[in-house]
Amino acid sequence: MEVLKTSEKILLYEKIAYNIERQINNEVYKTGEKLPSIRTICREYGVSMSTALQAYYELENKSLIESRPQSGYFVSHPVHKLAIAPETSNPTNMVSSDKAEFIISEVYKDFDKHKVTLFSLSVPDDALLPIPKLNKALLQATRTLKGSGTEYEQVQGNPRLRNAIARWSFKVDSNMTGEDLITTAGCMNALSYCLMALTERGDTVALESPVYFGILQLTKSLGLKVLEMPTNATTGIELEALKKAFEAQKVKVCLLVTNFNNPLGSSMPDSHKRELVKMLEHYNIPLIEDDLYGDVYFGHSRPSSCKTYDESGLVLWCGSVSKTLAPGYRVGWVAPGKHKEQIIRLKLFHSVSSTTITQEAIADFLENGRYDNHLRKLRNTLHTNSLRFIHSIVTHFPEGTKISQPEGGFVLWVELDKRIDTFELYKSAIRHKISIAPGRMFTLQHQFDHCLRLSYGLIWTEEVDKALQLLGRLIKEMY
Amino acid sequence: MEVLKTSEKILLYEKIAYNIERQINNEVYKTGEKLPSIRTICREYGVSMSTALQAYYELENKSLIESRPQSGYFVSHPVHKLAIAPETSNPTNMVSSDKAEFIISEVYKDFDKHKVTLFSLSVPDDALLPIPKLNKALLQATRTLKGSGTEYEQVQGNPRLRNAIARWSFKVDSNMTGEDLITTAGCMNALSYCLMALTERGDTVALESPVYFGILQLTKSLGLKVLEMPTNATTGIELEALKKAFEAQKVKVCLLVTNFNNPLGSSMPDSHKRELVKMLEHYNIPLIEDDLYGDVYFGHSRPSSCKTYDESGLVLWCGSVSKTLAPGYRVGWVAPGKHKEQIIRLKLFHSVSSTTITQEAIADFLENGRYDNHLRKLRNTLHTNSLRFIHSIVTHFPEGTKISQPEGGFVLWVELDKRIDTFELYKSAIRHKISIAPGRMFTLQHQFDHCLRLSYGLIWTEEVDKALQLLGRLIKEMY
Repeated sequence: MEVLKTSEKILLYEKIAYNIERQINNEVYKTGEKLPSIRTICREYGVSMSTALQAYYELENKSLIESRPQSGYFVSHPVHKLAIAPETSNPTNMVSSDKAEFIISEVYKDFDKHKVTLFSLSVPDDALLPIPKLNKALLQATRTLKGSGTEYEQVQGNPRLRNAIARWSFKVDSNMTGEDLITTAGCMNALSYCLMALTERGDTVALESPVYFGILQLTKSLGLKVLEMPTNATTGIELEALKKAFEAQKVKVCLLVTNFNNPLGSSMPDSHKRELVKMLEHYNIPLIEDDLYGDVYFGHSRPSSCKTYDESGLVLWCGSVSKTLAPGYRVGWVAPGKHKEQIIRLKLFHSVSSTTITQEAIADFLENGRYDNHLRKLRNTLHTNSLRFIHSIVTHFPEGTKISQPEGGFVLWVELDKRIDTFELYKSAIRHKISIAPGRMFTLQHQFDHCLRLSYGLIWTEEVDKALQLLGRLIKEMY
Repeated sequence: MEVLKTSEKILLYEKIAYNIERQINNEVYKTGEKLPSIRTICREYGVSMSTALQAYYELENKSLIESRPQSGYFVSHPVHKLAIAPETSNPTNMVSSDKAEFIISEVYKDFDKHKVTLFSLSVPDDALLPIPKLNKALLQATRTLKGSGTEYEQVQGNPRLRNAIARWSFKVDSNMTGEDLITTAGCMNALSYCLMALTERGDTVALESPVYFGILQLTKSLGLKVLEMPTNATTGIELEALKKAFEAQKVKVCLLVTNFNNPLGSSMPDSHKRELVKMLEHYNIPLIEDDLYGDVYFGHSRPSSCKTYDESGLVLWCGSVSKTLAPGYRVGWVAPGKHKEQIIRLKLFHSVSSTTITQEAIADFLENGRYDNHLRKLRNTLHTNSLRFIHSIVTHFPEGTKISQPEGGFVLWVELDKRIDTFELYKSAIRHKISIAPGRMFTLQHQFDHCLRLSYGLIWTEEVDKALQLLGRLIKEMY
């Protein structure tokens, strides 16, 4: 503590902040790690609560640490300053008959393989899920349901679950009730019904670019035309460009992932959401809002949705618990605004009803605060993971690599030098048992051939860090 | 036993047969009831096994009783002789914009009502399902599955379940393996994927007439044209008529319920199935074979399917456990022949995967003989119910009423005098808390306005008998 000796006038809180900053720089506390609690600081330094708090405020102002609600303080490291964000996309919409589908099925095969580090799979690791509690909820469901869940349930979906989702979603739409919701077999299934209700073969759907490949494949299988729109890695779809497409009467429907977009990580600011809803109303164009990541925010509260600002019923708001609780339960939903009756009929015709028992189990889980508890932990882990990933990429990947900085969700979007073909990278990485998602999966064009998506929804271990390091080396070798 | 005294020469077995016949006529043993076992007859009459057997053969020849494999002998009553079968349908295919959809949603509303006798719902009553054993299988599934079933499973479906279905279906296709099957969220979901894979908006699908309303609605929602084909209440679709439609190049695909058809109860004989498969090959037209009732046979063994005779992969064979184990589990499947890859992709795009846990539970249930045991009991109950229903209808409905005589399945098709409008009958019946399915639900035309479908998948009680009696009275009042 040399500095302290030479200047006795330094304030106590500055002294504490200085110490912790040095510990962070020396990696005594690593990126994403939890710092001592305020109480511990008080005890260790023999200071008051307000002095300890002031020290942490100081560090927070420097973006060195961050507080997380009800969890404490964590190292955020100055990597945010080092990482460069990807540029706004600029799709040409010259569809090339590329081999995206082939790449997708190649990558999918990895999911069954053993001991592969799956940076390509954007779901939470088993170890992040509250499995014993879900099992309890299932058991409970066999007791509360008539016929133990063997019976068909209402076509619209389990009423208890619909009410629980509505209550849970008051931040999205404070007027929402269980009557406004229809349950589905996961979020993709919700998107499928929405597209079937709103489009016919040959219609055009406006999507973000890059876009989740499942959405591309779904639109393709329905015979729809895709309009990939310029999208900013921070603020999402470019509204000016979308407006032009609306004006040109090109667009039948929009389908957007408005919060913590997969793969780009972008979230539309409230002002953009408001503006978009106005545009939808003006041109009478519906929006299918895929909001399945909204609950996985790293900030202080859940972001709004376009649904929040929708008064005309043009927004069909879709979600699920596949990214937060149980992908295999197939529990998703849609609040389809004025298209409710259409969607209920489609669900009836194409699958009669949802699986009774998993819906009741999720209802049980949502009803009594367990979801809240679980999400708090999950968000913390993912936030820490995202910072560790960014740190590791900045450290090990070539200079000039651009990385998204999502405020939530599961994935990072990485932009490499234009000369790098990430499908080639995929092929050499999988030989080392590392699976990544090449950029070409997320477009019908070629503008992302040098990009990749990395999921951080897994448990951070030394192996994961080594895998990122190895990935960096493989990229450098390709230069 | 006066007769016996006057003729001492009468043979022992005749004496026994005579006694039992009298007991049946006096309703000591009622329609559908079980008769004393051979062993009991031996003991009571002090006769040998062969004498007892001969007595029962005698009664069987008279169609008074019937043997059921591993279950014993049951009263069949001469009602079979009294009941008249409905005539072969003769649809005009002049689609009228009738109110079928309105009627369907009216009838659906009854399912949530209390204390309604649901002759309109063609699923087994809870009390007929092995619920404690299914609960055990669910619990077991949380133990055997990685992540307790929270994980996504293979897109093609649970491999254990697919293997179990393949083994179970050796009677349908002895070469079938788990690799040939794709699981779906029930049978309607399988039909949905098959139609999406094989047709485009505007194509024509050949269906039986009358046809299950869910199939009509599904085809309509996909923008398909429907060709309702003449169908015989015993032997199913009329092949000559179908051949003409094939020749006229009208048909893109056939969708038929080949065994124990809902609503008509018909089953195609083996010779018809063979002939149909030849026709499909000749005209290169695929058949979506909805075989979800095949396991609910009343005869000695499971009937064949068209799939049994298919060597070119043109038959997409669909089934489920929704009619035999657990409608709410949403477990169905399709063996799509040469269209396998297409169907897997559609399943992936529209719903990612099936519910993991219910599939594993059903796999567990199928693997160890429990399904066999359960089906034997279920078939017995349904067979008995069907005979009791027919008996009651013959007794209480107006003379001239025609009734189907299905050899399996869940439903009876009843044809009343042409002056009777069965939607009017529905409206007066529901006031008495009896729900029936009016004929107009099963066609886009008007040829079944005087018909109705009655499900016997419930527990036979005095109330059920009274409800049928009341229904008969309501019909008579309408004359």
